[in-house]
Amino acid sequence: MIVAMQETATEEQIQDVIEHLVRMGFSVHRTTGERQSILAAVGARVDFDTRNLEVLAGVEHVHRISAPYKLAGKAFRPEGTIVKFANGVKVGGDEVVVMAGPCSVESRDQLFTVAEQIARAGARALRGGAFKPRSSPYSFQGLGLEGLKLLREAGDRFNLLIISEVMEISQIELMMPYIDIFQVGARNMQNFNLLRELGKVRKPVLLKRGIAATIEELLLSAEYIMSGGNYDVILCERGIRTFETYTRNTMDVCAIPVIHKLSHLPMAADPSHGTGIRDKVAPMARASVAAGTDVLLIEVHHDPDKALSDGAQSLYPEQFSKLMDELRMIAPAVGRKLAPAAQLVRT
Amino acid sequence: MIVAMQETATEEQIQDVIEHLVRMGFSVHRTTGERQSILAAVGARVDFDTRNLEVLAGVEHVHRISAPYKLAGKAFRPEGTIVKFANGVKVGGDEVVVMAGPCSVESRDQLFTVAEQIARAGARALRGGAFKPRSSPYSFQGLGLEGLKLLREAGDRFNLLIISEVMEISQIELMMPYIDIFQVGARNMQNFNLLRELGKVRKPVLLKRGIAATIEELLLSAEYIMSGGNYDVILCERGIRTFETYTRNTMDVCAIPVIHKLSHLPMAADPSHGTGIRDKVAPMARASVAAGTDVLLIEVHHDPDKALSDGAQSLYPEQFSKLMDELRMIAPAVGRKLAPAAQLVRT
Amino acid sequence: MIVAMQETATEEQIQDVIEHLVRMGFSVHRTTGERQSILAAVGARVDFDTRNLEVLAGVEHVHRISAPYKLAGKAFRPEGTIVKFANGVKVGGDEVVVMAGPCSVESRDQLFTVAEQIARAGARALRGGAFKPRSSPYSFQGLGLEGLKLLREAGDRFNLLIISEVMEISQIELMMPYIDIFQVGARNMQNFNLLRELGKVRKPVLLKRGIAATIEELLLSAEYIMSGGNYDVILCERGIRTFETYTRNTMDVCAIPVIHKLSHLPMAADPSHGTGIRDKVAPMARASVAAGTDVLLIEVHHDPDKALSDGAQSLYPEQFSKLMDELRMIAPAVGRKLAPAAQLVRT
Amino acid sequence: MIVAMQETATEEQIQDVIEHLVRMGFSVHRTTGERQSILAAVGARVDFDTRNLEVLAGVEHVHRISAPYKLAGKAFRPEGTIVKFANGVKVGGDEVVVMAGPCSVESRDQLFTVAEQIARAGARALRGGAFKPRSSPYSFQGLGLEGLKLLREAGDRFNLLIISEVMEISQIELMMPYIDIFQVGARNMQNFNLLRELGKVRKPVLLKRGIAATIEELLLSAEYIMSGGNYDVILCERGIRTFETYTRNTMDVCAIPVIHKLSHLPMAADPSHGTGIRDKVAPMARASVAAGTDVLLIEVHHDPDKALSDGAQSLYPEQFSKLMDELRMIAPAVGRKLAPAAQLVRT
Repeated sequence: MIVAMQETATEEQIQDVIEHLVRMGFSVHRTTGERQSILAAVGARVDFDTRNLEVLAGVEHVHRISAPYKLAGKAFRPEGTIVKFANGVKVGGDEVVVMAGPCSVESRDQLFTVAEQIARAGARALRGGAFKPRSSPYSFQGLGLEGLKLLREAGDRFNLLIISEVMEISQIELMMPYIDIFQVGARNMQNFNLLRELGKVRKPVLLKRGIAATIEELLLSAEYIMSGGNYDVILCERGIRTFETYTRNTMDVCAIPVIHKLSHLPMAADPSHGTGIRDKVAPMARASVAAGTDVLLIEVHHDPDKALSDGAQSLYPEQFSKLMDELRMIAPAVGRKLAPAAQLVRT
Repeated sequence: MIVAMQETATEEQIQDVIEHLVRMGFSVHRTTGERQSILAAVGARVDFDTRNLEVLAGVEHVHRISAPYKLAGKAFRPEGTIVKFANGVKVGGDEVVVMAGPCSVESRDQLFTVAEQIARAGARALRGGAFKPRSSPYSFQGLGLEGLKLLREAGDRFNLLIISEVMEISQIELMMPYIDIFQVGARNMQNFNLLRELGKVRKPVLLKRGIAATIEELLLSAEYIMSGGNYDVILCERGIRTFETYTRNTMDVCAIPVIHKLSHLPMAADPSHGTGIRDKVAPMARASVAAGTDVLLIEVHHDPDKALSDGAQSLYPEQFSKLMDELRMIAPAVGRKLAPAAQLVRT
Repeated sequence: MIVAMQETATEEQIQDVIEHLVRMGFSVHRTTGERQSILAAVGARVDFDTRNLEVLAGVEHVHRISAPYKLAGKAFRPEGTIVKFANGVKVGGDEVVVMAGPCSVESRDQLFTVAEQIARAGARALRGGAFKPRSSPYSFQGLGLEGLKLLREAGDRFNLLIISEVMEISQIELMMPYIDIFQVGARNMQNFNLLRELGKVRKPVLLKRGIAATIEELLLSAEYIMSGGNYDVILCERGIRTFETYTRNTMDVCAIPVIHKLSHLPMAADPSHGTGIRDKVAPMARASVAAGTDVLLIEVHHDPDKALSDGAQSLYPEQFSKLMDELRMIAPAVGRKLAPAAQLVRT
Repeated sequence: MIVAMQETATEEQIQDVIEHLVRMGFSVHRTTGERQSILAAVGARVDFDTRNLEVLAGVEHVHRISAPYKLAGKAFRPEGTIVKFANGVKVGGDEVVVMAGPCSVESRDQLFTVAEQIARAGARALRGGAFKPRSSPYSFQGLGLEGLKLLREAGDRFNLLIISEVMEISQIELMMPYIDIFQVGARNMQNFNLLRELGKVRKPVLLKRGIAATIEELLLSAEYIMSGGNYDVILCERGIRTFETYTRNTMDVCAIPVIHKLSHLPMAADPSHGTGIRDKVAPMARASVAAGTDVLLIEVHHDPDKALSDGAQSLYPEQFSKLMDELRMIAPAVGRKLAPAAQLVRT
């Protein structure tokens, strides 16, 4: 931490700040310049609130030097994290892993129809929500346990990993037998109680960036999970809130290379939520692969017009299939590949 | 709802949109202009996703006419809501009600010291967190039940209402005996499961605006609570996230008069979180009263330098007392008043 | 325009609003619903301020139906605009046109070195600033006329179009003999006097989106130019300001497909300004092509470390050359191509 | 400036960064910690681009220590700046100076009617635009020189200072004989050529914050003017662009106390543009005074419904008069006062 003192700071004020820093566990190096004194505080702690120094008399600015996370930082594992699954799929390797499926699990028919189609097109994982608390108290709220069972069954049938959203601590145990990846939604990115519990499980977690969360905050939430011992965290860009209202969110595609520089964790992109509207999903999926994403999350529905949620941002299966072909052309430009189409072997 | 068709829309496309609207339960009035057709859809439903129409062929724009909330809207109770408490305090009436106290309950000594000082200065409620899941996994996490008991005891001693944050459904029952107002934090503004449960309790809820939430989304969350039968909701502005980083958040003071126009619910302002730094709390507290707030939430600590959380944004008791005097001068300009200082009667 | 009246609006208020609309030149169709009356105002005017209706008594909301622009809208030229240049280059066709060069023209040596390298790599246009009023009053301010002459000479030598920024009306005439495309910077996007004058010239204009400008505002600024008779306008996404501060701006890649849907005008992307940092330029350039951009603007400098401005966001020539190869792999995925490398024929 | 090196930085990389800093004119103090080296660069230069260091190999972060402005900073004139006018009005003293009037000067009748009414209510300056290039190419564009003459005449008649917006360098000379304060609009906050010229004139400048400008950028623009020798700069908050769209802009009331801490320059607030809608002007004007503003800019029109521009955000004269009375009640809470009403002496 660097504390820049005001030009007018008195020696007494400087000593007071030094004492604070020492009490906080830092060693302090002082540089006395022509105009001002600068205190460099070096130490192992990362969990302090810089504002506690900013309010001290004589302080001009406080700068955090080290990132406030360690386990999530690049230096912790410079070679990068590869999340490996039992069926051989690797997230963070040279394959761009596509996870697709409906917003909500609505019925067996719906789920199996979509699952077969996405598997045929080259997807590696089936996504689908079982719990859907909605912004309106009057809407469809999800199938719950029944949905989880359907997901597992479809996954087994079409050789797809299962990813589904966990919204409360109490759902973790319920979901464990059925899913391969816990998804944490944007609204729960800073639900620290939930993150703490997910740090104790032994399944990968896909953590979505909150719509008002900085990249640093996203990494700090990953740190929360990792500090519990679960290092298989996949981060996900899904759009942030800006003044532009034409699209529901503004997808921060640049977060992909930024996080690849700051962290060893694999990065996902969710253009369905990132744009909120069907005809923007394909362009932003292509852009995400071109920018280096490790994972794509895409909403697909065989009859989006009748979808119980998010139909407007779901691709038709044929659109998804065409998109996959385009992505196969783009991936080599960034040294990546996608699973081939028509790989489907019913088990 | 209004659906504006593209100039180039075919009659077939227009009929298709009309059928959709009818299927959704609307009656449709069509206006055929020189350049384009406009469909006005009228009906009782408020819980639809306009994007489902936007993706239909030939549609240019879809405009929601009615607000997507009803119970929270001004028309539901044009005279305004007054939340009344057993000790005679009324929120939403002609008194600006000040709620103050430390960020976290840290100890009996700390809490009682602060409680006495704020009561003496004219505060009506004591705030303090018992559960403090923090953004860093390494920080103080709150006293839990012990904190709740201390709050109740201090409230009884100094004739202060108790307001404390509820973070999970499981805490509701735990908190019921000890608090007078449930506070829902910004991060939980869209935790719909929690909101639904709070709709069933018979205690007022103070609902904070999320840092990326629009005013409409805040009202929709209030609707969620109210739809369960609990109409005693107080809304709270506490800063939104913008590009300006000098302050932690940008306090949207104008949300106060905006919400007073749109809704009958009382409005609170939290300049402590809205600014994040001590010397900006008093100016923004004054601004909030001048803009018409019904409630002020202020963090006060008798020794902020040693506070276990948010010390940098907590006022010293003497600063709080001076602020209360300033607010007493401002309130009459908006036809309001504050409780007098030194009203303290130990019970 | 649609005016939704409040449920409580009186007949007198409704009549008053109707009269206003008629006075403004609209014909009005009234729909009387169970809960509220809705007025649909149809007419040719696009230049009104909807707030003038919002303040009238009894009005709930006012919705603009038609886009406030006409010439820039898709319907005006559904087949799309192709901007053609004398040397055969076409912007908006099947070639992604790359425009590259230094931030500022610094010297003959610098400019010719960079120009040769970008031409060899497949760029079609040379960019470079001659006028550089800087945010600090103490920095390099550009070579002025001398810079324009150097640009023209380099363009002729290496068969590159010349694009350079115009900042004031007085520069238009000065620049005319030397440049092929006028660039309007983000800060001047709403300098309407400048736009009006550019509407009178017969050279294409590349109009950059302001950092706080919505897509609609960008299209309205294009309309300003086009209303003067100059229809050769290229729009450009170069990053918007958001709460995320890791990158200087957040590049709104999705603006590319959004504008392609709303407008017939070609779309450019500027990942150099959009990110502000060298190692993010290539990923975002790739993303932009994958999202469908017609033009790329890239800052390249043969010795960025010594550049007088924006060195940190300039690519080294070898990085640019590598990027061009990657883009050649991506372009076919969106049905596009790039000019081949080593096409250079000295004239 | 502080440069934090990566943990993995080599000694060679560290030496390279040190050489860069020395070449830039800094003296460098090195702190070698357990985990990383930190370089503190001390020197007089303020005009550098920190990104030039960020791109060097081995650099983790670069922190600017000193503010990038000097003349606008508090330390330059800790006692604060008071801008004095010939008629005795002082901006930055104990009087809150109210400047009011129509958006545009439309006619002699209009201007004199409004001027008399605002003077009677206690305003000290008359505002009004003579040049109105509008976002739509089809709207009223202002009276030009004729408008300036009317402003001067009205100012002389009702003892009001005249403030009007300057949009181009060529207007400065034209305006000099007629106005007392040059207003620079939000869109021109970073028109550095214009700012440089205003640095040479000997009339005060009121500089509005751009809708996407940080407080630091506003101060840097003030520095630009001051570096030319004109120290009479008044800064103005008028709303920033955020995701909240209910109001046209989000007024950052907290910018008032923030700038009062960082700078010696007086601060103005413009709730008319800050909110964009009439019924929010009074609450935000009150809030601004409560937060400590030195100046208020308020749009007033005797017949806003027929105003040629911005009628929707203009107060009726009686609303303005009532607001002034409210402000007179609030000002003493912050140790200020307002000019009395009915002070009018026709000259």
